[in-house]
Amino acid sequence: MLVCAPLTAVADEGMWTFDNPPAKQLQEQYGFTPTKEWLDHVRLSSVRLNDGGSGSFVSPHGLLLTNHHVARGQLQKNSSPEHDYIRDGFYAAAEDQEMKSPDLEVNVLVSMEDVTARVQAAVKKANGAEREFAARKAEIAAIESESLKATGLRSDVITLYQGGEYWLYRYKKYTDVRIMFAPEQQTAFFGGDPDNFTYPRYDLDMALFRVYENGKPIDSTNYLHWNREGAKENELVFTSGNPGSTARLDTMAQLEGERDAILPLYIKMVNSRLDALRKYSALGNEQARQAASLIFGLENSLKAESGVLEGLMDKNVMAAKQKDETEFREKVMANPKMAAAYGGAWKALAEAERKADSRAKDRYFHGTDSQLTALAMNIVQLVAEEKKPDGERLPGYHDAQLESLRFRLFSPAPIYPGLEIARITAALELDLSEMSPNDPFLKTILRGRTPKQTAEQLVNGTKLTDPAVRKKLVEGGEQAVAASGDPMIVMAREVDPARRELIKWLEDNVESVEQRAGEDLGKARFAIYGKSTYPDATFTLRLSYGTASGYPMNGTKAPYKTTLFGLYDRANSFNFEGPFYLPTRWAEGRDKLNLATPLDFVTTNDVVGGNSGSPVINRNAELVGLVFDGNIESLVGDFVYDGTSNRTVAVHTAGMTEALQKLYHADALLKELLGQ
Amino acid sequence: MLVCAPLTAVADEGMWTFDNPPAKQLQEQYGFTPTKEWLDHVRLSSVRLNDGGSGSFVSPHGLLLTNHHVARGQLQKNSSPEHDYIRDGFYAAAEDQEMKSPDLEVNVLVSMEDVTARVQAAVKKANGAEREFAARKAEIAAIESESLKATGLRSDVITLYQGGEYWLYRYKKYTDVRIMFAPEQQTAFFGGDPDNFTYPRYDLDMALFRVYENGKPIDSTNYLHWNREGAKENELVFTSGNPGSTARLDTMAQLEGERDAILPLYIKMVNSRLDALRKYSALGNEQARQAASLIFGLENSLKAESGVLEGLMDKNVMAAKQKDETEFREKVMANPKMAAAYGGAWKALAEAERKADSRAKDRYFHGTDSQLTALAMNIVQLVAEEKKPDGERLPGYHDAQLESLRFRLFSPAPIYPGLEIARITAALELDLSEMSPNDPFLKTILRGRTPKQTAEQLVNGTKLTDPAVRKKLVEGGEQAVAASGDPMIVMAREVDPARRELIKWLEDNVESVEQRAGEDLGKARFAIYGKSTYPDATFTLRLSYGTASGYPMNGTKAPYKTTLFGLYDRANSFNFEGPFYLPTRWAEGRDKLNLATPLDFVTTNDVVGGNSGSPVINRNAELVGLVFDGNIESLVGDFVYDGTSNRTVAVHTAGMTEALQKLYHADALLKELLGQ
Repeated sequence: MLVCAPLTAVADEGMWTFDNPPAKQLQEQYGFTPTKEWLDHVRLSSVRLNDGGSGSFVSPHGLLLTNHHVARGQLQKNSSPEHDYIRDGFYAAAEDQEMKSPDLEVNVLVSMEDVTARVQAAVKKANGAEREFAARKAEIAAIESESLKATGLRSDVITLYQGGEYWLYRYKKYTDVRIMFAPEQQTAFFGGDPDNFTYPRYDLDMALFRVYENGKPIDSTNYLHWNREGAKENELVFTSGNPGSTARLDTMAQLEGERDAILPLYIKMVNSRLDALRKYSALGNEQARQAASLIFGLENSLKAESGVLEGLMDKNVMAAKQKDETEFREKVMANPKMAAAYGGAWKALAEAERKADSRAKDRYFHGTDSQLTALAMNIVQLVAEEKKPDGERLPGYHDAQLESLRFRLFSPAPIYPGLEIARITAALELDLSEMSPNDPFLKTILRGRTPKQTAEQLVNGTKLTDPAVRKKLVEGGEQAVAASGDPMIVMAREVDPARRELIKWLEDNVESVEQRAGEDLGKARFAIYGKSTYPDATFTLRLSYGTASGYPMNGTKAPYKTTLFGLYDRANSFNFEGPFYLPTRWAEGRDKLNLATPLDFVTTNDVVGGNSGSPVINRNAELVGLVFDGNIESLVGDFVYDGTSNRTVAVHTAGMTEALQKLYHADALLKELLGQ
Repeated sequence: MLVCAPLTAVADEGMWTFDNPPAKQLQEQYGFTPTKEWLDHVRLSSVRLNDGGSGSFVSPHGLLLTNHHVARGQLQKNSSPEHDYIRDGFYAAAEDQEMKSPDLEVNVLVSMEDVTARVQAAVKKANGAEREFAARKAEIAAIESESLKATGLRSDVITLYQGGEYWLYRYKKYTDVRIMFAPEQQTAFFGGDPDNFTYPRYDLDMALFRVYENGKPIDSTNYLHWNREGAKENELVFTSGNPGSTARLDTMAQLEGERDAILPLYIKMVNSRLDALRKYSALGNEQARQAASLIFGLENSLKAESGVLEGLMDKNVMAAKQKDETEFREKVMANPKMAAAYGGAWKALAEAERKADSRAKDRYFHGTDSQLTALAMNIVQLVAEEKKPDGERLPGYHDAQLESLRFRLFSPAPIYPGLEIARITAALELDLSEMSPNDPFLKTILRGRTPKQTAEQLVNGTKLTDPAVRKKLVEGGEQAVAASGDPMIVMAREVDPARRELIKWLEDNVESVEQRAGEDLGKARFAIYGKSTYPDATFTLRLSYGTASGYPMNGTKAPYKTTLFGLYDRANSFNFEGPFYLPTRWAEGRDKLNLATPLDFVTTNDVVGGNSGSPVINRNAELVGLVFDGNIESLVGDFVYDGTSNRTVAVHTAGMTEALQKLYHADALLKELLGQ
């Protein structure tokens, strides 16, 4: 049975902001009330990794625990044909062996300030959706810029409850983040794509970084103590991390647009990209190594979004969503004042969705799927945008965002020309097959060439693979970019008008309407239900609660935990074939292990993508696990939470401890984790 | 995706009679053609156990392999408060330690003869459904009786293809069947009701009997050689066993009646009986021991029939069935001759179904759920029926059936009065709550007493617990039964008219119509499709084929086999609680085992209930596994086979061998099995 509750949270549902923890539910259901100190400590021990995941500090000297699959990008960027840290893993027994991440930024949320009144007041002065949009954007940029100047901290204004609230989040930012430990990819991702998003699971999906500042490991008391016993069955546990995005407060019209127009195109695009990468991989071991992380990420997206689409096509799910919307709408309409102020929002959102759908193809089939083209386009826009008043710039180019942007633009991570050519070729071929041959964006890029010729000429002619070249262009500003004969920069200059046109069109026709209507519904929701619920996920810090517990599965029960026995069962069951092989260390080390040790476990906590790497903690804020996935039943969590079978999948601290000790002999690491 | 093919079999579908093996499919798909010798050898090595399962001979000295859950009833009947063979298992290291089964009959199918022409000719002479019914019944009884007299063999006329064919099956019958080996129930049924009908699975669901004749083990070359390597992935395998009943050729009207009228009542009845038995079990260890086998059986039925009902409520399944029916019907109607002869069958079946539904409550809520009442009712009817001409008797009382009936009536198996009282009380309470208070059957039984008073007076007053008393009554015939003051016999005499009325009403209004319409559709099917398919299951010997292979499950893949590692994983995962505990032998013996040994495996073979205990054999007719279950996706197999996910679940011979050798030290047994 699906419990659908976007309006008032039930059971263990919710991704709660730290200013509004679910204190009532926790007290009523579990007799626990988190103190301010508890909340502050957990928040300051939690991090966001801007590669797209979460993590936590687990030692007084800056050790940062996250998933292997979150650290994967940085491992790949440190690897070479000679040293494949993805395949072989990595362990730095001493600090001087740690490897620098070329472009990983880590954020700690150090303060939260409600700026709703200021943003809404600025919007109120404007007239009409488009002017309101500009006013909102300018005010948000001003708040961020002022905060950056005043504090030096990364400052983001976050839109919560679809515009019901605006908050200024300030982050302490770290960019010197070094890889300390990672197991073999096969150990972290045993079972591969088939087992991804499922349970029972047997993955040691963990990695450790160490965070430095001014060339030294940071020192802090804000870290989580390692509880080597790990989570017990039915124990109350929390996760603190950054769920990426959900659509639980979306209207039916928006969900239907996602189902009928957006997701099918997205899935088509991902399948096409995967095809191209698999072909490239087949060329040889080195090609396979280069493409592995991209394939990994796309397979993950494909499985996740296919699950979301399946959920949106489930009649029971949609009926439950419809029922909730009808109830909410009737409550709004029953109050004449609210009806006048907010009653038009549903229609406005439906129209905006239809407009968005009409240009969905432009969004998915103007792709070039390449690092180099993205860098070129970013550089061309950056030099133009930075000259404008902050409030008028394109999204992504506000003062408060520039430092993080430059950090990424100048990353020394390797770029593989062969891979780039393969990706650009395939992307342009897909674009061509989906769009009109007279599409201005495509005509401009192709100039009558085939996709392959285009890709080869762009990639072979560019010097942008060198970060120094990119830096020089950015520092040279508009003049240097205008004068550049680099084919990537030339291409980016030429397609820039078409790209800007789409952004502007979406702002005027879709986003401005969505923001206004979203704010209206946000206000209506607060007026009717109070702040008894949580906002949709925004890749910002959230607290979720739940218990470690199994669930009904496929006619029987899934247990709350798995053990090391199960890893060997599944590997043997599949004759060690395909994604079920065991790395030598594990195949040969079996008898060193206590096979009854818990390896993974599930909890009822409400998490989604972006929560990867979140700590699982107990009442004492001790680390008892490490979130790395959701089960297949959780994929529908984008728009509905069902506590019966929606489960967070985590690595158990007992399993991590056992492996580190018996197989990896990571004695120094364990000593530090266990505080010995 | 559901592949629905009742008319022409595809993939590995089908429960084929040994006169019509799927030779074409086997040759085309697997390049294998079974010879006559192969088929005869497999058939004569296969057995039916009249407790409701299948088995096979696995040694030249009468060793019979079947499931623990098929042998369970006989183990229970040999157990006592002092010796609980269900809990502890049993092993006879020498022949003189083997234990006699009190009432197990084993049948070997020794000949098959097509008698369709004779039966249909007899029917043709009659006029109208009721007279046809009587003529068919009389002719079948005559065929059986003649055969019995001529050969001394158990002789059953089987209705195949809903009446499209009639076959005389002759069985060699064995009634001296001794228990030789059984593991602990918990080893055989690890995972209990939750894991029942699911996979991956970790059960050693095996038991061995030895079959005797004239006080000596039988000697025969018709047995299957034990292949200790067991089934390999993707290997072609066969099962030879007795699937109980399917409804794949039923019309939509019949399936809808099953869904809407029959199954809901049946499930209600089973739930009520389970409640009563669980309450009785809670009274103490001895009560729990007495009720265990009944609970086991009812839980099994409940899970199976709930799965069937779910399938019947699945719109995709029903749409596929509807499509098949429509196609078949259109083909019949397109031919004027066929339309005239058979076109009325669907309507006739729909009407018969409606009539049957109208008295469904009488069938399920006239229950007394008791061994003693059943014995009494059988005795009362037997003495009356045996005096009639064979062809006119009630079903079950024909000459050819009397020997098996007497064998069961005079079984020395223990009957527990406390358990009987609890069951009768609960059954009568359910009857009372569901039927009118003026229902004649109930009024007659209760005579104004409460259900509990009735049950106590009946059970405490009867002497039928003694098989000698039952024998004396039967031998005394009608006179002895009429003179008996035994309260059970008195009750049985009094309710007999109501019972006979229902049987007669069903014959006249339902069965006669179904048999006639079934024959019509059977003939139409042969005329249109030829004999390219298999008949519905009838608890008679069938051959199924398929491969050992995994399947897509819950977002990932289920492997084709499980290993002993998995048993320890699942036990540890659930902290050894509830149905996931390990018997001491297994908990303590872990390190003696090679845990990578395959324990269970799945195949695409098409089996249903009744196939329990069937051998899984390879091309060389060697034993490579032992069927004990179907997965949850196979429950819909009652009316449709889906090769994507429908799987037979079997014990692997490698797992059986490993356990017998390392944990049970069954050296003599192994020596005999391995032919050493």
